[in-house]
Amino acid sequence: MSKNPPYIECEGGVTAARGFRAAGLLCGIRKQKKDLALITSDRPAVASAVFTQNAIKAAPLAVTMEQLDRSTRISAVLVNSGNANACTGEQGLADAWAMVRAVASSLHLPESQVLVSSTGVIGQYLPMEKVLAGIDQIAPLLATNGHQDAAEAIMTTDTFRKEAAVQIPIGDTTVTIGAMAKGSGMIAPNMATMLGFITTDAVIAQDLLAEAFVRANNRSFNRITVDGDMSTNDMALILANGGAANVPIERGSQDFALFSEALEHLMITLAKMIARDGEGATKLIEVSVTGAHSSAEALQAARAVAGSNLVKTAIHGADANWGRIMAALGYSGVPLKGEEVEIAFNGVPILGKQYTILLNEAMAKEELAKETIVVSVNLNGGSFSEKFWTCDLTKDYVHINASYRS
Amino acid sequence: MSKNPPYIECEGGVTAARGFRAAGLLCGIRKQKKDLALITSDRPAVASAVFTQNAIKAAPLAVTMEQLDRSTRISAVLVNSGNANACTGEQGLADAWAMVRAVASSLHLPESQVLVSSTGVIGQYLPMEKVLAGIDQIAPLLATNGHQDAAEAIMTTDTFRKEAAVQIPIGDTTVTIGAMAKGSGMIAPNMATMLGFITTDAVIAQDLLAEAFVRANNRSFNRITVDGDMSTNDMALILANGGAANVPIERGSQDFALFSEALEHLMITLAKMIARDGEGATKLIEVSVTGAHSSAEALQAARAVAGSNLVKTAIHGADANWGRIMAALGYSGVPLKGEEVEIAFNGVPILGKQYTILLNEAMAKEELAKETIVVSVNLNGGSFSEKFWTCDLTKDYVHINASYRS
Repeated sequence: MSKNPPYIECEGGVTAARGFRAAGLLCGIRKQKKDLALITSDRPAVASAVFTQNAIKAAPLAVTMEQLDRSTRISAVLVNSGNANACTGEQGLADAWAMVRAVASSLHLPESQVLVSSTGVIGQYLPMEKVLAGIDQIAPLLATNGHQDAAEAIMTTDTFRKEAAVQIPIGDTTVTIGAMAKGSGMIAPNMATMLGFITTDAVIAQDLLAEAFVRANNRSFNRITVDGDMSTNDMALILANGGAANVPIERGSQDFALFSEALEHLMITLAKMIARDGEGATKLIEVSVTGAHSSAEALQAARAVAGSNLVKTAIHGADANWGRIMAALGYSGVPLKGEEVEIAFNGVPILGKQYTILLNEAMAKEELAKETIVVSVNLNGGSFSEKFWTCDLTKDYVHINASYRS
Repeated sequence: MSKNPPYIECEGGVTAARGFRAAGLLCGIRKQKKDLALITSDRPAVASAVFTQNAIKAAPLAVTMEQLDRSTRISAVLVNSGNANACTGEQGLADAWAMVRAVASSLHLPESQVLVSSTGVIGQYLPMEKVLAGIDQIAPLLATNGHQDAAEAIMTTDTFRKEAAVQIPIGDTTVTIGAMAKGSGMIAPNMATMLGFITTDAVIAQDLLAEAFVRANNRSFNRITVDGDMSTNDMALILANGGAANVPIERGSQDFALFSEALEHLMITLAKMIARDGEGATKLIEVSVTGAHSSAEALQAARAVAGSNLVKTAIHGADANWGRIMAALGYSGVPLKGEEVEIAFNGVPILGKQYTILLNEAMAKEELAKETIVVSVNLNGGSFSEKFWTCDLTKDYVHINASYRS
């Protein structure tokens, strides 16, 4: 008997939860599409964030990290697209701080409650006159249904908005978690950036929020790859403002398990959207590894298959090229026995044990022509399983990335 | 004053050195091009080999490893293209051993002196009737100028033969080292394979030969990447038959240094050919990192830049996209200060310290339009430097790999 998930998906994105407002507009960093987004909470929210592991960190990341080191009570987050403010030295830092001050001033907030984030071209200074004018204009636009404008304003080469929200019962109230994200593939000239912003009205302590968030992040945004290039601006942030007035979520409680599960589902939903919308991509690929000796080995094997250019081009061409999957498993570093491995595409067996070829070319072609491909690999070694998501590698990826600045 | 290198490049490939013969023919594994090569020495040569780190190893690799474990005195090496004999289980092993026996019988050699190697499609059994008939036919074709036929027979999707040879004075005689190789990019359906075969007439003990070979391999074949996919069949082999009758090369001697330097030059020459001829490639990219705190860090940084799909597509599009190089350096894991990094293309400065943009778009475009691009990165941290080679990433790479089996 299959159990219904304990959460309900709902509308509203990053403004679905009580007390959050958002807006998005075109301030002129870009030519045509919205490029400035603002998210606010009607009271200081507790915050937790994760950042790129890239040693070259953009100025807004440095500023946001410094702000959160001082205080995790946050009321506003400003995000711009079109310019990453990365590799911009002292000037870049000064610009990021100026954005913090301008938002604080415009919203009558302490500077300590404002964070900033950027995505776009590396190595160019922000057009600060336009940005500061944009900050003046955006405050009056803040709205409890502003999620779409904000989600649109953080897009770079994304082809669709990435939003999701879920609701869960906590005690006798309903807690909402909403989110928006952008992808995907280091993008514009030299760019970048997976960004994720999650808002919730849950009452939850900062340390518990961080615990659930880091775990969910490891199982979602850390499990997608488009081209293997890690950006200088990647960042994901969660804000919890307590607007639901639920009984506080306690460590080790059923409520915490529920909140964590809903958050993970929400973030995986966004992660899959990012993978599907990878530059030039036409398909979402889910690599599911079972039968591993440990979770770490399952993840390592799944990551190797998802990261293989050859697997990704084969799936793009709807070519049931299981040898490339075997080769990727082989170089993943995971101890395995080739003759024990079983492979299936969307549940259709391709390879059995002892290298038994079960592939029916016509059936495989039909599955691989679909827009979502689940590559299942059973290592038949242990009882652990993990997933990783990616997209196919296409000529459009090369086209987008070879000619961007031309 | 620049010093001339102590070696002279010469013709003759894998049969340049005394006592080696080779041949290549079409036995029918493939449809049109030669698919079977044989290299022999007129006396047992000492041998050393390196193999793929892939946990899934093809049958011929298992057989060759077992042979070399028993004895490093080798007289013949049979290589086929068109079929990797990988993921073929017990049948594949039996086939590889049958090839060893057939060559030994045909050439009247002990079985222990014969090695085998394969490259091509994964997961298909070899057409053994054709292979055994080919072995019967190839022995009479062996010739001291057979290097071109052999080099052609080991090609898969390579677009040109890869051969080189060098000569060095040892005592009062001349020692020759010749070689052939194939690349590059895991190729046909699921395949693979970098193969390298080096022959020399030097008198040198097996342990010294192995020492020089492993070192040269680490500085050549281990420093190229096409798509990051490591094959199940990669193998490089060196044979030294003593035909030059030089005074034996001793450990720690000037002769050993000379031999090692010439061998390294030869293998780097082949490695660069493989990178240049990567699937779909139009350019050779050399990533040269200087100013690192250690050789390991220099190599790690160079490998990250060379492995970046975004750097490779940008160079394909002649786009002087230095931000992508910075991002790759940043995620390489090497500790570095972004504001200390300097970047140049073919010696033309692009980025100076403190993120100073020196880029002249027209000049950069002119350099990046060339067929060989040297990406120089100075980390300005220490005094160590290393190189890594790759090719550009093109739509043809996707085309070749998405539609191979169609």
